[in-house]
This record gives sequence, C-alpha cells and structure tokens, in this order.
Amino acid sequence: MASPAVRDQDNHNDAENSSIGYCGKVMNKVVEFPRKLKKLGQDDPRRIVHSLKVGLAVLLVSLLYYFQPFYNGLGDTAMWAILTVVVVFEFSVGATLGRGLNRILATFLAGALGFGVHHLANLSGDIAHPILIGIFVFLLAASVTFIRFFPRMKARYDYGLLIFILTFCLISVSGYRDEEILEMAHKRASTILIGAFIAVFVCVFICPVWAGEDLHNSVAKNIEKLGSFLEGFGDEYFKVVGSGESNMAHLQGYFSVLNSKQSEETQANFARWEPRHGRFRYRHPWRYYLKIGNLTRQCAYRIDTLSGYLNSEVQTLLNIQNNQVQELCMKMSSESGKALKELAWALKTMTEPCSAASSHITKSRAAANNLKSMLRTNAAAVAGVGGDQVRLLDIVPAVTVASLLSEIVAYAEPIEKSIQKLASLQHVQFKSAERKKPTALTSCKTSSSNVGPHHVITMDRLASLQVQESNKEIGSKFQRIRSAV
Amino acid sequence: MASPAVRDQDNHNDAENSSIGYCGKVMNKVVEFPRKLKKLGQDDPRRIVHSLKVGLAVLLVSLLYYFQPFYNGLGDTAMWAILTVVVVFEFSVGATLGRGLNRILATFLAGALGFGVHHLANLSGDIAHPILIGIFVFLLAASVTFIRFFPRMKARYDYGLLIFILTFCLISVSGYRDEEILEMAHKRASTILIGAFIAVFVCVFICPVWAGEDLHNSVAKNIEKLGSFLEGFGDEYFKVVGSGESNMAHLQGYFSVLNSKQSEETQANFARWEPRHGRFRYRHPWRYYLKIGNLTRQCAYRIDTLSGYLNSEVQTLLNIQNNQVQELCMKMSSESGKALKELAWALKTMTEPCSAASSHITKSRAAANNLKSMLRTNAAAVAGVGGDQVRLLDIVPAVTVASLLSEIVAYAEPIEKSIQKLASLQHVQFKSAERKKPTALTSCKTSSSNVGPHHVITMDRLASLQVQESNKEIGSKFQRIRSAV
Repeated sequence: MASPAVRDQDNHNDAENSSIGYCGKVMNKVVEFPRKLKKLGQDDPRRIVHSLKVGLAVLLVSLLYYFQPFYNGLGDTAMWAILTVVVVFEFSVGATLGRGLNRILATFLAGALGFGVHHLANLSGDIAHPILIGIFVFLLAASVTFIRFFPRMKARYDYGLLIFILTFCLISVSGYRDEEILEMAHKRASTILIGAFIAVFVCVFICPVWAGEDLHNSVAKNIEKLGSFLEGFGDEYFKVVGSGESNMAHLQGYFSVLNSKQSEETQANFARWEPRHGRFRYRHPWRYYLKIGNLTRQCAYRIDTLSGYLNSEVQTLLNIQNNQVQELCMKMSSESGKALKELAWALKTMTEPCSAASSHITKSRAAANNLKSMLRTNAAAVAGVGGDQVRLLDIVPAVTVASLLSEIVAYAEPIEKSIQKLASLQHVQFKSAERKKPTALTSCKTSSSNVGPHHVITMDRLASLQVQESNKEIGSKFQRIRSAV
Repeated sequence: MASPAVRDQDNHNDAENSSIGYCGKVMNKVVEFPRKLKKLGQDDPRRIVHSLKVGLAVLLVSLLYYFQPFYNGLGDTAMWAILTVVVVFEFSVGATLGRGLNRILATFLAGALGFGVHHLANLSGDIAHPILIGIFVFLLAASVTFIRFFPRMKARYDYGLLIFILTFCLISVSGYRDEEILEMAHKRASTILIGAFIAVFVCVFICPVWAGEDLHNSVAKNIEKLGSFLEGFGDEYFKVVGSGESNMAHLQGYFSVLNSKQSEETQANFARWEPRHGRFRYRHPWRYYLKIGNLTRQCAYRIDTLSGYLNSEVQTLLNIQNNQVQELCMKMSSESGKALKELAWALKTMTEPCSAASSHITKSRAAANNLKSMLRTNAAAVAGVGGDQVRLLDIVPAVTVASLLSEIVAYAEPIEKSIQKLASLQHVQFKSAERKKPTALTSCKTSSSNVGPHHVITMDRLASLQVQESNKEIGSKFQRIRSAV
C-alpha cells in the first residue's frame, strides 16, 4: 500500500539523520539549500516573480522618503506607507485586496470610534478619564477578539478585526489633544492609502496571480489526478504486460487531493475580493467550487481505499485472469478515468461537459451493469475454473475491487452534474461544446477547437433551472448506481 | 451515504435563503447572532477566557501611558508596546511565544542590519545614498520574500521574516541621523520587549491554553471517534433491533478526522515553542503525533468508504441474516472499535497501551481469520440458503463490507505500535499499566486507577530500541493481515 510506504520513508529519513550527527546535518542543509531554492522556483516560477514584485513595491514606497514635497507634507508618518506595503502585499490579488481593504476600513472605523471615546473621556474630567478609557479598551478588545472566533469572520475579516483593536487602542489611549489626533489621523490615513494603493497596483498590474483562477485550476487538476489514477489502475492491478513498477509513482498523484480542503477554502475566500478577470466575472460563484471539491475528495477517499488492494497478494487473482471480470473491471476503471479527465478538461477550459464525457460515463456504467448481470447468472463463471467448486476466498479481492470500482464509477456522474450546474449558474461563462454532431467518438477537445476560442455563450435561466432540477436527482441516482454490482 | 447528505443540506439552505429575500436574511442574521455567540462560547469556553485575557493585556499595556515616569522615558514610542501586545497575543501559549520571539529576534537582527546599511549609505555621499539604499531594500525584500515560500520557514518563521523586512526598510530608509536611530532603536526595543512580556505573561499565567496539549488530545480524540464509529457500525449495518435512525448522527463523528491534517500540523509547529508543561517535557516529540495522525486519517478514509455501504439496499443482505458472517463482521467491527477506544484512552491519559487493547485487537483478528476460513471451506454457507445455487450478486455487499472491515481491523495494530513507540521515545513520560495480572478481561482504566496517577516511570533506552525494532515489522505484518479475508 502506498501510504504506509510514505510513513516508512519518514522513518528512514529519521534514522539517516540520527546517524550522521549534528555537523553532518548542518553541512547537508548548507549543501542542499541552493538545490532547494532552485526547486522552489522551478515548482512555481510565479514565486520568483512575486518576490521581485514585493521588492519593487517596497522600493517604490521607499522612494517617497526621497521625494521632498511628499516628505515635507507627511514627515515621519511616511513610515506607515512602508509598513502597509510590507504587511498588505500577498501572493494573490484577492489576498492583497482583502488585506488592503480590511486595513483601510478597519483603520477608518476604529479611528472614528477611538476619536469619539477619546473626546468623551476628555470631557469627563481628569480622574474619570483613565477609568473610562480603560473600560472602553478592555470591553472593545475582549469583544472584538471573541468575534474573531466566528469561522466566517475569521476567514474574511480576521486581519481587519485585528487592525480595528490596534487602531482603536492607539488613538483612544494616546495622550494627544483632539486637534493633534485629527491631524495625525489625516496623515496616517493618507499614508495608509498610499501604501495600500502601491501594493495593490504592483500586485494587480505586474503578472497578477488570481486566487480565483488558482482555485478553478486546482479543482480541475484534482479531478484530472483521480482520472489518471483510474486510467492506470486497471493495468497496474491486473499486471498487464508492459506496465512496470514505474507506474506506481504515477498512481500516487491523487495523494494531494486528500488534504486539499483547507487550501481550496482559503482560495475561495480570497477569490471573493477579486474583480472581474480573464474568463471570470465579478461574483463568479467561487463557493460552488468547494462543493465540486468535496465530491472530488469523497471520490479520492474511495480511491485511497482501492489503492490498498494494489499491493495485496496477486496470487489469489490468478484464477480470474482468464475471464471476463478482469476485462469489465478494467473497462470500468479506464472509462471512468477517461470520463473524469474529460470533465477536468471541460472545467479547466470552461467548456460545457460534452458528449464524450457522458459516453465514457455510460460505458463505465454499462460495464458495471454487465458485471452485475454476470454475477447474477452464476458464481462459477467468476472463478473461471469451469465446473469446480467456487472457493469464495479466492474471489474476495476481485469482488471487493469490483465493488469499490462501481462506487467510484458512481461518482463520475454527480461530478459531471455539478460541473453542468456550475456552467448554468449566474455570472458564469462557459463555452458551448459542439452540439450539432454529438457522436460518441468525437472528443470534446476536437469539437471545441472547431468552435474556436471566441465562441462564448451564456446559459440562459431556463437551462439553469433544468439543470438544477436534474441535479436534485443526483442523490437518488447515486443510490441506484451504488446498488449495482 | 452521509456525505452527499451534507451536500444536499447546503443546497437546501441556499434555496431557503434565496426565497426569503434580502431583508429577511438580514433579520435572520440579527436574530441568530446572540444564539451563535452563545454556541461559540459553549463549544469551547476557553474562547471567552481568551477574549478576556486579550482585554486584560491591552488594558495593562494601556496603563503604561498613564504611568508618568514610564511615559516620560519612552514618549510616543510607547505605542509600539500596544501594537506588540495586540499583534503577538494568540490563542495558545505556543503561538504567542512563537510570534513574540519571532518579533523580538527579527526586530533586533533587522535593526542591526538596517543600521549598518544606513551608516554605509551615509558614508557614500548624497548622490549614491538613495541608490545604495534602494538596491539593498529591493534585494533584501525580494530574497526574504522568496525564503518565506519554504514550507518549513513558512510554518515557523513566517511572521519573523515579515517583521525582518519591515524593520529593515523602516530603519535603513529613515531620514534620521545615526545617533537618532540608536536612540529610537533603544526606545523601540524596550517597548517591544515590554509589550511581548505582558502578552506572554498574561497568556502563560492566566488559564494557559497549550497547543501541545490540544494536539495530544485531538489526536487521541480522533482515534476515539473512529472507535465509536466501528462500535456502532455493526448494529447499524445489520439493523439490530433497538438501534434507530438516531445512531446515524453518532456515526458521523469521524467526518472531522478526514480533514484534520492542517490543524494538527499547525498545532505541532506551535507546540515546539512551548516550555515544559503538565505531563509534557520540553522537546516532547510533537512531530511524532503527526505520524499517528496520518495513520488515523488513512483509517478514516477507509471508514468513509465503508460508511458508503451503510445506506445501500438492505434487501440483498436478508439472505445472510441468519448465518455466522453477520456475527463475525459485527465482532470484527466492535472489537476493533473497542481496541481503538482503549488506545485513544491510553494515549489521552499517557498510559502504556495495556493488555485490554491487545486482546481486543487479537479478538478482531481472530474474527477476521474465522471469516477467512469460513470462506475457504465453501460458498453456500455464506449465502445461508442451504443447498441452493449461490447468487454471487447477493453476497457482494457483505463480502465487500467484510473485506473493508478487515482492512480497517489491520489499522488498529500499527496505531497501537505507534503509540507504544511514542511511549518509548526520549522526553516522553507514559505511566505504566498494571503488568502483574495481565488478564484480558481487565480494562486499562481499572488497572491504571490501581496504580494511581503519580506512579510515573520513564521507559529506558533498551525498551525503546526493542519497540523501534518491532515497529519495523508493522509494514510486513500489515500486508499479511490485509491478505486475510
């Protein structure tokens, strides 16, 4: 099984580390550092671009110090511009915009509130002043901190709430007179606005990284990874000639899908802040991707279970090598794999899932049904040993694998429906696939290239409602498909 | 199946929301707000305590403003103390210490470096000054930002690296003379130290929340959740009289285990900063918990797959109601469930896994072996219909469930071994279970209460090596167990 192998590798590393001593470890790290740096950049070159962008933004804001009229106007508060750039600049546009807006809004609101409290305390006399301020500071800090525990607030406004407490305390506690505070507030607001503007400008206009696009691509990529596993599983399990051990690494691609929930949720939260970009309109239904992601993960859990049978002893399977079960299992696996890959491609390119995906799903379901009827007719056929007594033990792994495969096959359909539903939602622009000649053999990719990249239609509400209705049937269909095999 | 049910609930909420209009939504939110607040506090009362602690820390640091000698000495830089408290104070001690140390170290290092660069630029003349500063700021900001992408650096020093860029830019860019910078640096260092000290003091000495303890408890709780599922699964699947629908909610407890990876890793990173506390020494092997967590999650994936068969049509099972397969499956499920619960209890209370857990594991394995031999002898017995022809289709769900159960049963042993290994590691103090009368029927809980809570021994290195050796066998045993059934 793949996963315990990963655990063993960990142990192996531990053992290796403990044997070479502290000096060796440090030397190893020093030697490996440039290699790791290079790999980090190669894995995602946008990281290098991002680092340069941060350098540029900080450089730009630093220049303000040397720009005399500006410095004379703002003086030392210009440092708040540097602070804002460094703190606000994030990898994706959504994250940067989110932090920037959070910072600006929270600073203004808390500034106003802090000024009010400060003014009130000033009116109340010298003795009551610190008591009043203390009570307000305590109550506000405690209540806003508690609000930060709301999952929804934490996801979107955590930074804003922090800045809110901070600014409120700084202003209400400060020993300045009201006029001084107003002047300071004016300067600080200007510098924060300038800093946020520079950060957002550099982030958006120089090689922008869109959180929404990342989410879109990673959800599609995850479906594709499951498809790749299923395409390769049949050959690997039944040890078809030509497929060596090297295939195992290819089959482990789905590992990353298992723990993708948190990163998808973070990206969806960032994406909410992003304006219209590329193929995505403002108010693109990002949250809907989380539902597709959930389905994908549930499918991945079953695939992880299935992969546990990859290394189980093959000998017991020899009995069924010569019969149709192997063929049907391989068909279920490869067809559902192809279907998932088609769906991943459709999602990635924002093309409506076309007939090719449906036909693969139909084929995989047909294989599942064939297997079912074969099992219904008799048992001996499965064992493939003619008239001999069936030894159930021999067929248990095969039956389990077939049953798990039919579980997994059943997931392709809801994934297809959910992509169709996404295509039908408001604010979403999916290209239509070629519909005139829906031959089963024509791949989506071919038909779409006929249509050309600029042939874009928006699904009307009627189609949307139809798909929504059909989507409600997923649950019941799901059950029916599961009971097959 | 449980998971699609969750998805449907989401859809249902969406539909409900869209029908009541915007005003209704706002009203609903206003009405629900106090209820949600209450629930948030009830779910984890430590949140309320934490909020009050933040209020107290901010109040304490605000008082510095009113403490005249202090204010005269530090002046406006006192605001950095407030800033530090608000930014550094986190929920757990580890997170607060980590952020505090990151902030202090990064400020000192970047301050020194920034001062050096500033001094160097001053020496180089008026024209070269801004160019030199610009080059340094750009290079440092870009390279440190790139280093932040290292997963290990991100996990532990992300905040420190951010503060490093920030402080370096503020100091090297500032238009001050060298003497002014030194004075400012002195003041700012004092205020940051005071702020960090207040934050850490309040965090550690008033109802501390230890990240390490949270990690320890959540890993144990996750194992317990899997145990609860397995204990209840048999009754639910075979619809034993007395178990109603209400049991389903109980069976869904394992959901949270599936996506626990990220929170466990975060807690392990925080825990590294924590000093000795309670039952945990300094340098407690927190990373080892991640390995136990990984095993638990792999088991949870299989349980999620198994749970897919809970709702499959029961009719096909009626044929096997009257035979031994049901009994053996229920035994496998309940015994492995009990074993996992014993193990969870042992981990939670830091007692060495005792004979009761082993005996449950042995029993569940024995049931798996019995099932295996039953399957070996003949097929008709399974169908429970005497001399009739076996219809394989009828027994497929049962065979699959039995096979999946034996997969899951196989996970109890590596989890036991990994807890035993944890107990044997350096810096770990596990209580020894009663060893004098290792009867299978005596529960850990009873034997441990005889020993009393203060009977603590440390495992010696010899035992450690033995367990490590036995741990290496997990992989091979694992394979052997899987091939059973």
